[in-house]
Amino acid sequence: MKTKNVIDLTDLSHQELTDIIKLANEIRERPKEFGDVCKGKILATLFYEPSTRTQMSFQTAMLRLGGSIIGFDNPQNSSVSKGESLKDTITVVGGYADIIAIRHPSEGTAAAASMYSAAPVINAGDGGHLHPTQTLTDVVTLYNEMGRLDHLTIGLCGDLKNGRTVHSLIKTMSTFKGNKFILISTPELSVPQYIKDIINASECDYEEIGSLTEAMPGLDVLYMTRIQRERFASEEEYKKQNGVFVLDKEKLKAARKSMKILHPLPRVDEIDVEVDYDERAKYFEQTVYGMYGRMALIMTMLKNTDRTPDPRVYPTHPFRCSNPNCISRTEKYLPGIFREAGGDMLLCRYCEGRTLI
Amino acid sequence: MKTKNVIDLTDLSHQELTDIIKLANEIRERPKEFGDVCKGKILATLFYEPSTRTQMSFQTAMLRLGGSIIGFDNPQNSSVSKGESLKDTITVVGGYADIIAIRHPSEGTAAAASMYSAAPVINAGDGGHLHPTQTLTDVVTLYNEMGRLDHLTIGLCGDLKNGRTVHSLIKTMSTFKGNKFILISTPELSVPQYIKDIINASECDYEEIGSLTEAMPGLDVLYMTRIQRERFASEEEYKKQNGVFVLDKEKLKAARKSMKILHPLPRVDEIDVEVDYDERAKYFEQTVYGMYGRMALIMTMLKNTDRTPDPRVYPTHPFRCSNPNCISRTEKYLPGIFREAGGDMLLCRYCEGRTLI
Amino acid sequence: MKTKNVIDLTDLSHQELTDIIKLANEIRERPKEFGDVCKGKILATLFYEPSTRTQMSFQTAMLRLGGSIIGFDNPQNSSVSKGESLKDTITVVGGYADIIAIRHPSEGTAAAASMYSAAPVINAGDGGHLHPTQTLTDVVTLYNEMGRLDHLTIGLCGDLKNGRTVHSLIKTMSTFKGNKFILISTPELSVPQYIKDIINASECDYEEIGSLTEAMPGLDVLYMTRIQRERFASEEEYKKQNGVFVLDKEKLKAARKSMKILHPLPRVDEIDVEVDYDERAKYFEQTVYGMYGRMALIMTMLKNTDRTPDPRVYPTHPFRCSNPNCISRTEKYLPGIFREAGGDMLLCRYCEGRTLI
Repeated sequence: MKTKNVIDLTDLSHQELTDIIKLANEIRERPKEFGDVCKGKILATLFYEPSTRTQMSFQTAMLRLGGSIIGFDNPQNSSVSKGESLKDTITVVGGYADIIAIRHPSEGTAAAASMYSAAPVINAGDGGHLHPTQTLTDVVTLYNEMGRLDHLTIGLCGDLKNGRTVHSLIKTMSTFKGNKFILISTPELSVPQYIKDIINASECDYEEIGSLTEAMPGLDVLYMTRIQRERFASEEEYKKQNGVFVLDKEKLKAARKSMKILHPLPRVDEIDVEVDYDERAKYFEQTVYGMYGRMALIMTMLKNTDRTPDPRVYPTHPFRCSNPNCISRTEKYLPGIFREAGGDMLLCRYCEGRTLI
Repeated sequence: MKTKNVIDLTDLSHQELTDIIKLANEIRERPKEFGDVCKGKILATLFYEPSTRTQMSFQTAMLRLGGSIIGFDNPQNSSVSKGESLKDTITVVGGYADIIAIRHPSEGTAAAASMYSAAPVINAGDGGHLHPTQTLTDVVTLYNEMGRLDHLTIGLCGDLKNGRTVHSLIKTMSTFKGNKFILISTPELSVPQYIKDIINASECDYEEIGSLTEAMPGLDVLYMTRIQRERFASEEEYKKQNGVFVLDKEKLKAARKSMKILHPLPRVDEIDVEVDYDERAKYFEQTVYGMYGRMALIMTMLKNTDRTPDPRVYPTHPFRCSNPNCISRTEKYLPGIFREAGGDMLLCRYCEGRTLI
Repeated sequence: MKTKNVIDLTDLSHQELTDIIKLANEIRERPKEFGDVCKGKILATLFYEPSTRTQMSFQTAMLRLGGSIIGFDNPQNSSVSKGESLKDTITVVGGYADIIAIRHPSEGTAAAASMYSAAPVINAGDGGHLHPTQTLTDVVTLYNEMGRLDHLTIGLCGDLKNGRTVHSLIKTMSTFKGNKFILISTPELSVPQYIKDIINASECDYEEIGSLTEAMPGLDVLYMTRIQRERFASEEEYKKQNGVFVLDKEKLKAARKSMKILHPLPRVDEIDVEVDYDERAKYFEQTVYGMYGRMALIMTMLKNTDRTPDPRVYPTHPFRCSNPNCISRTEKYLPGIFREAGGDMLLCRYCEGRTLI
């Protein structure tokens, strides 16, 4: 693999991604052959924001490869509470561990971490920005459940505006030919324009539909997501809209027998519990596919023996990113690094936020 | 072992329990032979209620068998805090792990978990209900320290009303012949009637005594437990009663030289520290016996390769359990499953609480 | 190694310390040869006061030797919160684990723990008292970066009054010949008299200087430490003094090219981030040396198979230590054990505090 760190799943080439999916399947079929491949290696899971699910998935992946784990899930217990910078924490842990999975509430943190870490860095979620191993989980599931990653009609339902898993899945799936995205949401929670631009620039297509029931019959895949109560204008609005996007047995009647239902989990009530017993429900299997995907990713990344921090030498600018949730806003020593995005716009290389000069 | 999950120690037959005790002793005598038997296997310790002691005992047991561990001890850091159901957490973790030990403040949680877990489930404590591996610890200790599990005179002292370790120990020991239970407590904190019924139905016997000093000379074993301050009507009552049930050197003078003192720990002040240096004190050795007991249990359970969740298909009823601390009260999707207990009474299959129709 | 427990680095003889440093270097050069030497052994990290850095360093060390880890970093989640004594916790964990690393906010805790632990105990920090593995980290770094441990001119800068790492480093380095300590601080934060007495009694020397810039040219080594804001009389005083003791590129101009900069970390702002890129900065490498030092220490201690708790049979006195932060003040069952320190003074064997009879 060319890239040392995995900040975004698009850091991987199409071929590299396909290789990881195939490796994930090999591990799944013959797990015993891989039970010692990471013996003597240590994964550090640095969770500045708790997420038991994701952390356990990474830990299980490493342990099933014969490796070991260190880490924290409670920043109050860490040196962070003594005012230590991200840079110092990462520099030290990068010296202890062979590979790092980091989750942080600020956007761009994994990219910033990769600038100081001797060990390769996996982004395990940076605020509302990216969560590439969730997308890896999704594509491993699709590959296995559908037999292909192209020419699929994929319904995406819920909060498409704020859902980073949705954005990331569209970005990755639009690199495969002939996929059609059916975007199912209220107008207020529809997919941002830049995601539509990505689809438009690809060999894929999309359609926006305001009703889950209406969209159902045409779908190969239904990707459900949570709608957070606080995204709605009022409780009344929430109750009204929410029911429309809840998947239950009744709505499922219109679906194809071969359709597969995915969900990044945790689920709250957007899928009725009775759907769990439908054969089309694949969201629990999905977490197991995710474990194999992470095993394949860790194994592949550890083949790279480069222990040099990524200098990320881009043209730097004497500006601060204007995204208030960008890691460069709180970690002041980080240089302002941007990509010119046309006109007077700069794109932050940490959080991908846009700043007007 | 016939049972896949261990919710209650009585899930094991008399023979199965004896086999586990014998295996525990084999491991204790030749630990090196067992250092790799669980290589490649993962134990998840899901502690919704913190208990470092119990968690460390399970972790140590798995590590000494060559296995690995994942888990949490702080539900605030888990997906639970995002409103995830027990069912979903268990379904996912049951896909990651090979065996689960679960502790939860609500009664019946381990039973409910076993309905959704591919991995076998060990009850590591469900509210005030059951704690079978503590009882396993107790019987491994008794077997080794007394040389037998029958024809013992066992004093049980402290809060016998609320102490689940006491109830569980009596239930298990009354399956062996000729044991006599000396129940030492205040009238307010005496053993519940249903426990007395169990003894009466067995080949064992019991006697109630209000004084530790008086009971002492006849005992083969003294099983001490904590009396929680909040169980008493007043602070005055606590101080008065508490001293009567504190074991110290003075009270110990009346005991046999061969008597053994057990305690499930943690101890607060119901055993004076000076007693620790008496040769009859076995409560610290007891924790080590517990580790070997858990090793034997894990090893035995992992021989069962059944990965089907226990459907617990009992006659279900359109009722909710009336125990306010039953897991079925908070996890609403759980079906009401009961056993008819005579008359208009139903016995909840989660928490064993009684509900009047 | 003669001593079973490592409470203070001076528990090791000069020869034993040198052997551990050499073993650390062997492990660093040929790590694969040591990847299984602690297979089947368990380290318990009992952190009553969180310190991710130190805990991770111990965990990494044990895992890289092929051992396993248990432990906690949050006393609220432990039996401690049920009122359990240190003695009981240690007795139980000492039965589970093969070696214990303990950190606690009270002084003397590691010494007290060693009285009840079957497993050998490493002091991972006891309040403001001792932190021997930090000092081991420092000397492994000095040995490798300077090629020797004697005849060095070592500047120590910052809060020399309260900095336990400084005291401990001076105690250890003054056992080697011809070292000169340049003590750089404000008069209010200067080294305590008893440390000066130790230097005076050795074959080393010291000098006190109030300016980092002035001291710089003569130094072989600069050991920087944090000055905590709350140590100053006022915010104004802090700002005034603080700048004087901040290391930046400008102050570094006066230093020798061969000088090495150390810091126990975490760093807040007493070293400017730009210094990190100077070749003389060795504080991040220092953490890696520390990992090898801890590996060598653990490996050496585990060769000792003595499982008897250290009785610490010293002449005891019917007194309590007068240090309010001594562990013997809160754990009441601990006997008062003292060494006569001349006149009417007693030296507490837990915290080394002085009590006037």
